[in-house]
Amino acid sequence: MNTPAPSFAAGLEGVIACATRLSDVDGTNGKLTFAGYNAVDLAEKKTIEEVWFLLHYNRLPTEAELEAFKAKVEKLGRPNAQEIRIMKGLRAGEPLSAFRSILSAIASQRGYKPWLNRDVAEVEEELLALSALAPAIVEVIHTGKAPLKKRNNLGYAERYLWGILGHKPKKEARQAVETYLILTMDHGLNASTFAGRVCASTGADVGAAITAAIGTLSGPLHGGAPGPVLDMLDSIASVDKAKDWVKDQLTAKRRIMGFGHRVYRTDDPRALTLKRVAEKQKGPRIELARAVEHEVLSALDAHQKAKAAATPVRALRVNVEFWTAVALEHAGIPRELYSSTFCTSRIIGWSEHIREQLKDNKLFRPLSHYSGVAAQPLV
Amino acid sequence: MNTPAPSFAAGLEGVIACATRLSDVDGTNGKLTFAGYNAVDLAEKKTIEEVWFLLHYNRLPTEAELEAFKAKVEKLGRPNAQEIRIMKGLRAGEPLSAFRSILSAIASQRGYKPWLNRDVAEVEEELLALSALAPAIVEVIHTGKAPLKKRNNLGYAERYLWGILGHKPKKEARQAVETYLILTMDHGLNASTFAGRVCASTGADVGAAITAAIGTLSGPLHGGAPGPVLDMLDSIASVDKAKDWVKDQLTAKRRIMGFGHRVYRTDDPRALTLKRVAEKQKGPRIELARAVEHEVLSALDAHQKAKAAATPVRALRVNVEFWTAVALEHAGIPRELYSSTFCTSRIIGWSEHIREQLKDNKLFRPLSHYSGVAAQPLV
Repeated sequence: MNTPAPSFAAGLEGVIACATRLSDVDGTNGKLTFAGYNAVDLAEKKTIEEVWFLLHYNRLPTEAELEAFKAKVEKLGRPNAQEIRIMKGLRAGEPLSAFRSILSAIASQRGYKPWLNRDVAEVEEELLALSALAPAIVEVIHTGKAPLKKRNNLGYAERYLWGILGHKPKKEARQAVETYLILTMDHGLNASTFAGRVCASTGADVGAAITAAIGTLSGPLHGGAPGPVLDMLDSIASVDKAKDWVKDQLTAKRRIMGFGHRVYRTDDPRALTLKRVAEKQKGPRIELARAVEHEVLSALDAHQKAKAAATPVRALRVNVEFWTAVALEHAGIPRELYSSTFCTSRIIGWSEHIREQLKDNKLFRPLSHYSGVAAQPLV
Repeated sequence: MNTPAPSFAAGLEGVIACATRLSDVDGTNGKLTFAGYNAVDLAEKKTIEEVWFLLHYNRLPTEAELEAFKAKVEKLGRPNAQEIRIMKGLRAGEPLSAFRSILSAIASQRGYKPWLNRDVAEVEEELLALSALAPAIVEVIHTGKAPLKKRNNLGYAERYLWGILGHKPKKEARQAVETYLILTMDHGLNASTFAGRVCASTGADVGAAITAAIGTLSGPLHGGAPGPVLDMLDSIASVDKAKDWVKDQLTAKRRIMGFGHRVYRTDDPRALTLKRVAEKQKGPRIELARAVEHEVLSALDAHQKAKAAATPVRALRVNVEFWTAVALEHAGIPRELYSSTFCTSRIIGWSEHIREQLKDNKLFRPLSHYSGVAAQPLV
């Protein structure tokens, strides 16, 4: 029936859709924690495998546990010959779309079945295996060749960067990528994680759920901005042009990439950390990026002060994508792979969310309000 | 912060997530309408293309418009040589999983880009094109060969069934499939439609959104039951065994396939229609299916009467999957293709929902409640 529209939260903004023990996003205070630990501390002091273990087992590993986990992930990350053929066959086009199709096809070829009524441990193994494959998938998409045989006992971040660069990465570049990958591993119920949980809630196989999440990540409103940040810096070109460029953009009310976030009301802790990472790398973009950040924040600040004190405006800060762009560029990752790099991190969070979903499942089946034409007879 | 859990609706049950002008599911009164028309009337009197046009343009077509639309869908439904190669390369495994990977890869190879900031008409054309491909995709998955060149000017349902059977279908079988495909074309904000809208809300390309929806449909709690209904009928084997079989199942509290639905509180109008379709076909399963339905409903009725009047139990009725199984079997569709047949219908509804989403978009980004361990320092 076409009754008057009931009020509902568009985009489910502010609506709690599930509980999670994985991450806590405190947008008001600018804090992000993973299983109780400050994500920034983890990103600066731990490896991906340690944080992955933490999300998986809800505690940090002992040394022996970490070695075993690392070896397991490394082993699961080696595609077989048929899977390398699939990767090569589907690598054309936009890298993250290729990633989506490749992962979907591999899950299907492996015969992953709906998880409902199956042994949980077996399904969890599938989730771990799909996530572990991410570095190899991106490598084959990028190079068109079978993954390089890297020296044994390498971590996820190093294997990832090595695959893209084609050689062993320098320590500083590896650290930058490791910090980035840890920081972006999980972030509450963002759209891709949510899509993955909705898909899994029907009992679908975990390949379907991860595929849904990858597709969702590919939207510019979600995971798409670090690449465009670099395009923007390219077009500004030099430090002396930053001030006028920012002024022109704001006057024309054009969007400036890399600022603002739906959840954070203050500094995004990930952005601050990645800025430090980028600065430590001392790459050629630092000065320009700093100048643009400074000009944008000054202009916004001036704009704010010009308004009446009675109408406080939400502070617009640099977001995680701005400094990600600079840090990843300095590490040697080409910008067309930024979304896939994000995916290589977030796939770990998705897997853990899907695991959580299937342990306490309830089908996601909200309602729609019918707003169409009134009932009419067919004549 | 790990504060006491706020109350929230698990699975978003009862929560309105968006408005739609497409379908209205009235579960209390057992009514389903598409753009104001009773879906049962449409299914019994119209073709798929007429109802598709209705969902697309919000009104029924004139004769000339219908011819043009039908011709357009038919033309868009022909894959090119490279796409047929993709279909053949990815057809192994569970058919609906293959469908997911194939559609994802085709969208990617065609270079479909995020829809955000693009010309709406162009994106709508992509949605139409992906949906139109469904019959060819299922045909190649089933046969492993390029789609048969069918006589021109065939409708979607006839092309679909012809592709599976390998010959021109009989009128009654075609009609049964057409009725089924129309009836299941759309159904409010079911889980797969919802996943498609969530994905599209990030600005992702429409291939990503349809891929997410296909994956979500593959869960047994969503689209998976018609096949198992036939497995169940197989195991009962004959009419004289129906009564004891049902009794045994209920005593052992085992699930009986094809009964109950989350939304309908009374008869599902689609189930009643498909029962008529199945009966009209006069196939070999009718007697057994009728006997099982009768025994289950009688047993549930007796169970209900045995309870105190003060504790009314929700009536459990036959759902759309029970009679779908029988109708599709009589039409000659093998049971392993039932989910793909459902997908060939629902893909039309998804496309229209995604179109609706991008015309009035708001990112789906609900919240999660953190239920993990309290904040702790990293030592």
